Amino acid sequence: MSCIGILGGMGPAATVDFLGKLVALTPARCDQEHLPVVVSHLPQVPDRSRAILGQGPDPLPALLRGIALLNAAGAGLIAIPCNSSHHWYEAMAAASGAPILHIARTCVQALPAGGSACVLATRGALASGFYQRALAERQITADVPDPEAEQPWVDDCIRAVKAGDMAASGRALDEVLRRARQRGAATVIMGCTEIPLAMLYAHADGLALVDSSLELARACVQHGLAQGWNRGAAGSATPLPRAA
Amino acid sequence: MSCIGILGGMGPAATVDFLGKLVALTPARCDQEHLPVVVSHLPQVPDRSRAILGQGPDPLPALLRGIALLNAAGAGLIAIPCNSSHHWYEAMAAASGAPILHIARTCVQALPAGGSACVLATRGALASGFYQRALAERQITADVPDPEAEQPWVDDCIRAVKAGDMAASGRALDEVLRRARQRGAATVIMGCTEIPLAMLYAHADGLALVDSSLELARACVQHGLAQGWNRGAAGSATPLPRAA
Repeated sequence: MSCIGILGGMGPAATVDFLGKLVALTPARCDQEHLPVVVSHLPQVPDRSRAILGQGPDPLPALLRGIALLNAAGAGLIAIPCNSSHHWYEAMAAASGAPILHIARTCVQALPAGGSACVLATRGALASGFYQRALAERQITADVPDPEAEQPWVDDCIRAVKAGDMAASGRALDEVLRRARQRGAATVIMGCTEIPLAMLYAHADGLALVDSSLELARACVQHGLAQGWNRGAAGSATPLPRAA
Repeated sequence: MSCIGILGGMGPAATVDFLGKLVALTPARCDQEHLPVVVSHLPQVPDRSRAILGQGPDPLPALLRGIALLNAAGAGLIAIPCNSSHHWYEAMAAASGAPILHIARTCVQALPAGGSACVLATRGALASGFYQRALAERQITADVPDPEAEQPWVDDCIRAVKAGDMAASGRALDEVLRRARQRGAATVIMGCTEIPLAMLYAHADGLALVDSSLELARACVQHGLAQGWNRGAAGSATPLPRAA
């Protein structure tokens, strides 16, 4: 029997949120109609953003151990509810028997083509550029926070969620959202899986919010149900959903 | 590196709740201070309560596959946030290299000795009797809902949570709690991991609530931190926490 594999723990609260979305999105009247999942929750993976910026150890070996575990556990599709780790997407996909959904590509599919979108993400993810590339493919202009005047608030927000300080995470986000509104932004991509958690404590009126974690969960559920994994179907050689 | 193994999916929302408690209970300032976890989320395991009552297929083979997966993934301690499945505790413990925490014994440790406690659980768990035995060991009288006048409300509550109908789950619980209060109950054991979720939608004033899922999570976190699993410590041959 095949299942959805989640490479998580990056961060821990974001993984709980993602698994909760996956369960909530599944139409089921009893346990047995839900999708089987294996979660490799590995918070010890070295900081992804710091590594991309050349300030910390390489997380790829730890990421690959998680991918190997999920494949060994029978995953037919893998989701990674951590945007920054997608800097290493190609290496993980090459090492994985199961296809891996790309969180940024999946998320950007939820947007109408054209226009612009503000991307809230880690410094590392923005430096890597995978959101900018995914947006460009859909003719959407990436509106990236100013590295000195705005990104520090995003950094603070993400750090506060990881430390469980939700009130502080919301306050940090308020300042970023205020400045985004001032710049005329209409759409904000929550391109770090901690940000939807902080958003519950922030003031986001007047902005359309796109949640990378929710879009990834939606794609997982659609694929898992289409493959019949909640009916005990085996999942070898399943085609990858469109957005990945 | 050792980790906490969670045999979950029974039900799915209860597993999300349990993992959330585990993360929230861990004192951590960043991802890397959190505990590593592997979750085998298997909602297809046949209904535990029905099997105990002789009305459905045996879930033990599926439970043992989950236990084997967690052991293969390096679990140093296993938690099962499903009370009814503890009917098969001895068989699972015998097949597992990693010790398995017993949810009912762990939960009952949270109570002061003596007095009585109302046990809300599945019909199967109550028929199995492991809560009654754990309570008797601490000289606590088990107050069990009347099988015909009260237990149907508990059954409805649990079914509603599994179907995602939270309002209905709370309404069903209200009736049980009203009757428990009428009988003079002061303490209620939420001896099914769906019940804490329903309780958010119920009226439980005047009752002390003991949450089997929370107590299990607390025991996991204490053990994981004591073993240093968030500092990359290997976990072979670790002694089981007291309550198990």
